Amino acid sequence: MSGPLVGRLAIIGAGLIGSSVARAAKEKGLAGTVVVSDRDAAVRARVLELGFADEVPETGAQAAEGADIIVVCVPVGASGAVAAEIAPALKPGAIVSDVGSVKGAVVEQMAPHIPAHAHLVPAHPVAGTEFSGPDAGFATLFENRWCIVTPTEGADSEAVAKLEGLWRGMGANVETMSPQHHDLVLAITSHVPHLIAYNIVGTAEHLEHTLTSEVIKFSAGGFRDFTRIAASDPTMWRDVFLYNREAVLEMLGRFTEDLSALQRAIRYGDGDALFEHFTRTRAIRRSIIEQGQETAAPDFGRRVVKDGTAG
Amino acid sequence: MSGPLVGRLAIIGAGLIGSSVARAAKEKGLAGTVVVSDRDAAVRARVLELGFADEVPETGAQAAEGADIIVVCVPVGASGAVAAEIAPALKPGAIVSDVGSVKGAVVEQMAPHIPAHAHLVPAHPVAGTEFSGPDAGFATLFENRWCIVTPTEGADSEAVAKLEGLWRGMGANVETMSPQHHDLVLAITSHVPHLIAYNIVGTAEHLEHTLTSEVIKFSAGGFRDFTRIAASDPTMWRDVFLYNREAVLEMLGRFTEDLSALQRAIRYGDGDALFEHFTRTRAIRRSIIEQGQETAAPDFGRRVVKDGTAG
Repeated sequence: MSGPLVGRLAIIGAGLIGSSVARAAKEKGLAGTVVVSDRDAAVRARVLELGFADEVPETGAQAAEGADIIVVCVPVGASGAVAAEIAPALKPGAIVSDVGSVKGAVVEQMAPHIPAHAHLVPAHPVAGTEFSGPDAGFATLFENRWCIVTPTEGADSEAVAKLEGLWRGMGANVETMSPQHHDLVLAITSHVPHLIAYNIVGTAEHLEHTLTSEVIKFSAGGFRDFTRIAASDPTMWRDVFLYNREAVLEMLGRFTEDLSALQRAIRYGDGDALFEHFTRTRAIRRSIIEQGQETAAPDFGRRVVKDGTAG
Repeated sequence: MSGPLVGRLAIIGAGLIGSSVARAAKEKGLAGTVVVSDRDAAVRARVLELGFADEVPETGAQAAEGADIIVVCVPVGASGAVAAEIAPALKPGAIVSDVGSVKGAVVEQMAPHIPAHAHLVPAHPVAGTEFSGPDAGFATLFENRWCIVTPTEGADSEAVAKLEGLWRGMGANVETMSPQHHDLVLAITSHVPHLIAYNIVGTAEHLEHTLTSEVIKFSAGGFRDFTRIAASDPTMWRDVFLYNREAVLEMLGRFTEDLSALQRAIRYGDGDALFEHFTRTRAIRRSIIEQGQETAAPDFGRRVVKDGTAG
């Protein structure tokens, strides 16, 4: 191989995902130059300190200038504005991509701004943690995770292949589907799970004060599992729900119908229905473990030590 | 100290919890003799192989004979039958306890069978994993976890203190409350979380076949977290919902009311309401971590390797 996969790689937005892309690209030598920008001056200063970028310009347009691939890593609701900002700076053949958790709305927002001489290839790495910001990222975040690429109709196949190569280079497996299908699948695999996690933590918080403190105390009974994803970035998740409304409401409707059926089984003491339901759900976890998307270790292999630091 | 805390400790039911109590008592020298019984002959044979019991009699009555403390570790719905079986074998001063996730119903079922010369002291260690059976237990399961003791009115204080000593000896912190209050607190910290986890995994399973396989593939987006507790023992959880119906329906009602409010915010595009909700929920996780009930490591410190074995 002669030289890195990408000459100049620009990352706009240095949060958990953006800083992980920069770190992975740098560590694996995927780009000649890694340029990282963020609209927050404090974040830019931190990126300089952390040292995972070759250049840290002030604006997205400066970052996009001369870049071969530009990965926009901002909350979904901000992607249109970033596309408008960088559009005049895009060189011929430049590939503009993103990492948003919603794809239909991102295409709607970004596509109108991308000039004919550049390519829009949206993507979504299905990876993350509950932490946010430039310190939270790490180079191995995408290893053995899926990255879903959602090219629009008539997308340039070379541009799509190049972007896929970048994600494979970072250790991800790549899958391709339409933006609409992506949004439906993610509604049930990610968006509704986050919503109900945020919701039950909220329900616990609304309880009488003494009860809330007991919830915290006895959270090892199951509740604490939900608090992890309910600690995710509020801006990002607000935008996910605002911009994937239709699919989320559809899947949430199915969820509440099913919950009503379980509630009814509890009310009328239908133990057989409960047992049957609780038995079938075990198989899904087994499949997830077999496909290398989850650990088989009991309790996630979680280790809790008394002072709350990681075990 | 002269000799172990308990002379003869009987454990009836050698599942995850029962086998962990036996292992912890043996490893920490808390009992002169550890007796473990199980109604399943195959489980008894396995207990003998695993070697964490000094005696493995066939029946609960045989195990209870001469025991100082008898810990009943069976699904909540079976606790009445076990109490009836062991009652004639109880020696004067014997302490009968349990580990059930519901306490009001356990007291109702067990208390009528316990003779006046013995003591019933129900308890619930808030600890566990998604695995079941005698192989799943381990001696450190209760370390730094809470054990809730729920003495009934007029309980013998020495008997309560002795049982609390046993749990402290296994590394647990002990809290005391009424059976009714326990059932309300556990409904929100454990029972409703399990129900909604079972429910969303069920919703995913009800989808069209191709969608279900995509849910498995892209589960790292959040869904996989729920599959852990939805892989818990179906018999145990059926009984929890049958025997804590009132508190579960009450807390489930609050959960669905709150979910309706979030759903409405999504439908009408109320980003401020979503953002505000998603911000408040972060604080609860921080408190849980500070109290040593959860790891601060990102993603539970989970490590997934390709072949699905523990990292």
